[in-house]
Amino acid sequence: MELISKIIENLKEVKGKSPLVHHITNYVTVNDCANIVLALGGSPVMADDIKEVEEMVSFASSLVINIGTLNERTISSMIKAGIKANELNIPVILDPVGVGATGLRTEAIKILLEKIKFAVIRGNMSEIKIIAGMDVKIKGVDSTASDEDALDIAKNLANKLNTVVAITGARDVITDGSRHCLVDNGHKILSMVTGTGCMSTSLIGAYVGTTNDYLQAAVAGIVTMGIAGEKAYESLAQGEGIGTFKVRLFDNIYNFCEEDLKVRGKVIYE
Amino acid sequence: MELISKIIENLKEVKGKSPLVHHITNYVTVNDCANIVLALGGSPVMADDIKEVEEMVSFASSLVINIGTLNERTISSMIKAGIKANELNIPVILDPVGVGATGLRTEAIKILLEKIKFAVIRGNMSEIKIIAGMDVKIKGVDSTASDEDALDIAKNLANKLNTVVAITGARDVITDGSRHCLVDNGHKILSMVTGTGCMSTSLIGAYVGTTNDYLQAAVAGIVTMGIAGEKAYESLAQGEGIGTFKVRLFDNIYNFCEEDLKVRGKVIYE
Amino acid sequence: MELISKIIENLKEVKGKSPLVHHITNYVTVNDCANIVLALGGSPVMADDIKEVEEMVSFASSLVINIGTLNERTISSMIKAGIKANELNIPVILDPVGVGATGLRTEAIKILLEKIKFAVIRGNMSEIKIIAGMDVKIKGVDSTASDEDALDIAKNLANKLNTVVAITGARDVITDGSRHCLVDNGHKILSMVTGTGCMSTSLIGAYVGTTNDYLQAAVAGIVTMGIAGEKAYESLAQGEGIGTFKVRLFDNIYNFCEEDLKVRGKVIYE
Repeated sequence: MELISKIIENLKEVKGKSPLVHHITNYVTVNDCANIVLALGGSPVMADDIKEVEEMVSFASSLVINIGTLNERTISSMIKAGIKANELNIPVILDPVGVGATGLRTEAIKILLEKIKFAVIRGNMSEIKIIAGMDVKIKGVDSTASDEDALDIAKNLANKLNTVVAITGARDVITDGSRHCLVDNGHKILSMVTGTGCMSTSLIGAYVGTTNDYLQAAVAGIVTMGIAGEKAYESLAQGEGIGTFKVRLFDNIYNFCEEDLKVRGKVIYE
Repeated sequence: MELISKIIENLKEVKGKSPLVHHITNYVTVNDCANIVLALGGSPVMADDIKEVEEMVSFASSLVINIGTLNERTISSMIKAGIKANELNIPVILDPVGVGATGLRTEAIKILLEKIKFAVIRGNMSEIKIIAGMDVKIKGVDSTASDEDALDIAKNLANKLNTVVAITGARDVITDGSRHCLVDNGHKILSMVTGTGCMSTSLIGAYVGTTNDYLQAAVAGIVTMGIAGEKAYESLAQGEGIGTFKVRLFDNIYNFCEEDLKVRGKVIYE
Repeated sequence: MELISKIIENLKEVKGKSPLVHHITNYVTVNDCANIVLALGGSPVMADDIKEVEEMVSFASSLVINIGTLNERTISSMIKAGIKANELNIPVILDPVGVGATGLRTEAIKILLEKIKFAVIRGNMSEIKIIAGMDVKIKGVDSTASDEDALDIAKNLANKLNTVVAITGARDVITDGSRHCLVDNGHKILSMVTGTGCMSTSLIGAYVGTTNDYLQAAVAGIVTMGIAGEKAYESLAQGEGIGTFKVRLFDNIYNFCEEDLKVRGKVIYE
């Protein structure tokens, strides 16, 4: 079965089983992350107190760790929840927002990678390069690095950490170290709305909740966001902008279907 | 005067007096809770530091305590603010989000119920069952329990705690232990947007700010959300989904009026 | 060159240089603040842990400190980040949300004013009066004070603190103590959406990132929000309300241009 067909199955499973996606995430985009998971058909739960994260994650189908507004309290909760998820074979997804921008973020990611086995790590080129140990100049949480050697970097990191690495950008690169996918969906206006990266990670969290194929789930989340974004952009009339775009993005995720994937999916699988 | 007429008066009072609704709530849906209170005509304030909650609540017309993303710091603030509100006869509303999902939540609710007298407790069937001391399986913060014996459970709990208990679901049940209401407004799409439960609680917080009839205020908040949700759903065109739905929900609360209550209100009062 | 022309240049610079605006802000309106900065053309970053704020602010073009949901942890971070920004000559903007409502807020603002030199302080009449040491009754975070003597209060405070003071209301007053502007843009529906004040402050943060003229940047942020709000209000059809208004507000900021400023700008500069 080809990848798009598998993703279609994965989407049906999400809608049918409504996997619970436990998030320990930032307070900037958390509402959007919850709504995007609901729109796809999943069930989000946000809980970050150290006294409850182990219990909460034990009910979950997946755990999303996003360091967007990390602090000492939540870093401890991330570690505890991640270790518990690993024990229970619940897949853990990492969004290393702004790693490299500050020592706190870089140190936090080091510890998380030491203690937790991740199913998928999704970031932009700068973030993934930092994790791969390369030197890169970061401006806030945005990336401006070239992505031409993205695949090599991603493959090496995926092999080193035994995980799926997804680098999102104009062309998205997703690999488990042996297999890889390139995704050409999306539109640059997505970077004009805060949290579209976080939301992609949350969609991966939903998809990963009903499959053991983490590469497929990562591609699914990214292609879903890309297609929904394209359609939202194309629908904009004169005078409309990111306000309307964001509304339509959620509409499109809510109505996301087999046809969208078949007609619009631009996935190269090797 | 029948209940709908009283709710119409209550709505006018909210618009005229703009009651200040102090929230100690979660960071997932807090923006929506603030905007829904503003849309109805109230005045929201969010403040959770233990050093200021007593002062802040002393200006307020009501206090909403929502445990969606509780932590040790905010639990202490909830207790302190609630005790102060009780001293000043300011009504306190409880939204026990996800109680039963973790020990932390269950313990927090136990302490809150011991220390604070609530005017209204609003939750879904699972949450209210937990509070009533019954056994129930909870999946995250969502409820899948049958609601057929909802009225008995609600009445017993209302009498035990000397409060108004509101169970929201397909048919909402609201009771003070002697009187009760059943509300048949709403649409299931409301459960596809995060925070519609929290927002209902915040609306109750606004209504309760201008009346001493807590049963009426609880029904008012729930019927308002239900009607606004129905109208938002009915307005959706092909290709629209929860993005547009949420926008229209706020539009409908902003324009909510006597006519909406008279024409659409499905309230059985016994 | 007249002020509107300078603001047009400032807008182009924001779009061209995409200044990084570091926020330490509240969890109620943080998502809207991030999106408004993006919509204008800037680059927002939200980071509040004491271990990273000095590093983060050192990359930034400006720092926005907003005390909307302050707590002990974040107050310390605000102080540390502000001092660092001052050392590096990075302009710092203050939004003293709800100062005077509680002792915690008033004390926090006192300390911030002692330790940090602000480029711009933007608040409503009540908030600015509190800072100016005058007596005023505050209801939550909203202001109902008369603004007739706003200019005197603002000028005195601006001179005392050697900063730009901006009082927003029906008529906005902005002054550096010698020069002053009055802005008559905006619409009262803006006060029906939570965070429009915070968002104005964030827009100032973006404008201030590409100019040394802080008075101009403050006027720019306020007039931008005012014009975008007017246009959003005028576009509303029957049955639409604050949901649609907020969407269009973001659309209008995204499409904000020279023409808007030339045709609609109501700025009196003396």
